Amino acid sequence: MSPHVPSSDSIRTVALVGGTHGDELTGVALVRAFQQHPERMQRPGLDVTALIANEAAIAACRRGVDGDLNRSFAAAELADASLHSVEQRRAKAINAQLGPKGPDTATDLILDFHSAASDMGLNCNITGEDPFLFRLAALAIHRLAAEPDPLTVRCYQFPAPTGDAPYLPTIARHGMGVEVGPVMPGSLNAAIYFPTLCLAHTLLDLVAEYAAGRWPDAPLPLDVYTEIDTIPFPRDADGRLTAMVHPERTRRVYQPLQPGDPLFLDFHGRTIPYTGAPGLYPTFVNEPSYLAKDIALCLARHSQRMV
Amino acid sequence: MSPHVPSSDSIRTVALVGGTHGDELTGVALVRAFQQHPERMQRPGLDVTALIANEAAIAACRRGVDGDLNRSFAAAELADASLHSVEQRRAKAINAQLGPKGPDTATDLILDFHSAASDMGLNCNITGEDPFLFRLAALAIHRLAAEPDPLTVRCYQFPAPTGDAPYLPTIARHGMGVEVGPVMPGSLNAAIYFPTLCLAHTLLDLVAEYAAGRWPDAPLPLDVYTEIDTIPFPRDADGRLTAMVHPERTRRVYQPLQPGDPLFLDFHGRTIPYTGAPGLYPTFVNEPSYLAKDIALCLARHSQRMV
Repeated sequence: MSPHVPSSDSIRTVALVGGTHGDELTGVALVRAFQQHPERMQRPGLDVTALIANEAAIAACRRGVDGDLNRSFAAAELADASLHSVEQRRAKAINAQLGPKGPDTATDLILDFHSAASDMGLNCNITGEDPFLFRLAALAIHRLAAEPDPLTVRCYQFPAPTGDAPYLPTIARHGMGVEVGPVMPGSLNAAIYFPTLCLAHTLLDLVAEYAAGRWPDAPLPLDVYTEIDTIPFPRDADGRLTAMVHPERTRRVYQPLQPGDPLFLDFHGRTIPYTGAPGLYPTFVNEPSYLAKDIALCLARHSQRMV
Repeated sequence: MSPHVPSSDSIRTVALVGGTHGDELTGVALVRAFQQHPERMQRPGLDVTALIANEAAIAACRRGVDGDLNRSFAAAELADASLHSVEQRRAKAINAQLGPKGPDTATDLILDFHSAASDMGLNCNITGEDPFLFRLAALAIHRLAAEPDPLTVRCYQFPAPTGDAPYLPTIARHGMGVEVGPVMPGSLNAAIYFPTLCLAHTLLDLVAEYAAGRWPDAPLPLDVYTEIDTIPFPRDADGRLTAMVHPERTRRVYQPLQPGDPLFLDFHGRTIPYTGAPGLYPTFVNEPSYLAKDIALCLARHSQRMV
């Protein structure tokens, strides 16, 4: 066991999940590939399963049919038999199969594969604080950076919500999202698929090494990008968009934003500069699935910790 | 009047349409901008209106709510009062407002603004044969190529369907699609928006010049890309994708495809080469909205004509 995570925290059962959002096909293809060749996901000492989360949404080629499956795993919602939309029923079925959410869950670790249209690269997404997951992410990041064809992987942290978190990975004892981009919703990007597969294999290797007590002792530095804010689109009094993300900013994901930098371009060609705090990192820039939430981009704070 | 189009073919009423597909926001933004500043679309001798085609689909941020509005304008469907999905009702309302489809239509020309996620650039889409539209496209292409900041515009031809064509522009005497990309569904790309606006203004200018009898006499060469085939994705016996568009091909829209060129990459990293006829031009490459139609890419034949 690593000295950096509780020694009681054994990991035996792992679930790889794809298609939580039906238009994010990278995870769907990856999970189907593992299902067709289950020997490729098995590791000594681990029991690894692979699950397609929302076949109905995949068939419809949409994020969800009646709602967002990744917001349907709050304990109160899982317990409410009167809720039975497509996503609410799938959440209950997945919770019965991989959970149940809580101390008696059957699953030690869920890796939930998502994709973004924004040029996010490869990310390990962690909600709140989980020493095991941060250490796992750090080891994956260092290992893949040291490959002959190095891959850049980042650790992205969502603040833990107050109260009952509704995300699919919360039904396991540990849950991590794998977020990759750019991949357009409803499509596959071969230039992203294989790096994602490589990250999946590395995470499985590392979990097996953890289960075998073979993680190194030395602490590792980890760069963490913590989402702290979102920026809405400029709109008129009728709620209609008056500007687009500035083309100089669209592709500059994870590049620090400074006051005065071009942020939006209105429909008359006028630049609207950024006026907020310095040194934050734009993420999910111009992400289509965030338009309905009125998020033009997210802002993350960078920090480094030893894990 | 131009000697190249029938002299009886006067053009007075023009409609600019956006949001025929609710997730193609370039046309929505462009039409809303014209609605807010109608003086910018008016031209001497023309009566120009601007219409948002499918507000319900835009609000849902989807191609359509119950169907595809741009397949709902067949005369038989317009006449069938028993058909009343969201899109079928919108088709009837738009036909009442801008049509009715047929010789007594109130609208001489519809320009219908679409966008593609594929890197299509700027296109004038023409279905079948229409000498006025080919000449209009050629004049726009030559004029924009001669600007200090030249824009490349292509003429894309869809074969006319046998029988009753279901497309929105068919309710006018002349109907042209304007197809621009890359713009992700559900988002705006500022780098495409302004060239599209420039093309819209140029088309309006040219139609006004036509109405005033000021088109030049000299015939112009026009490169036409005619869609002649589509290529489906490789699938297994269960109908599931076994490969992605090859990354070398994804961005090579409108670059000729030769036998042996990498076309797909399967999930094991094996390249599947193209084995069809030489010298065709891939278009709509890896277009997400075409996945449901099982189209990985379209193939166009290039020809040149004098118009």
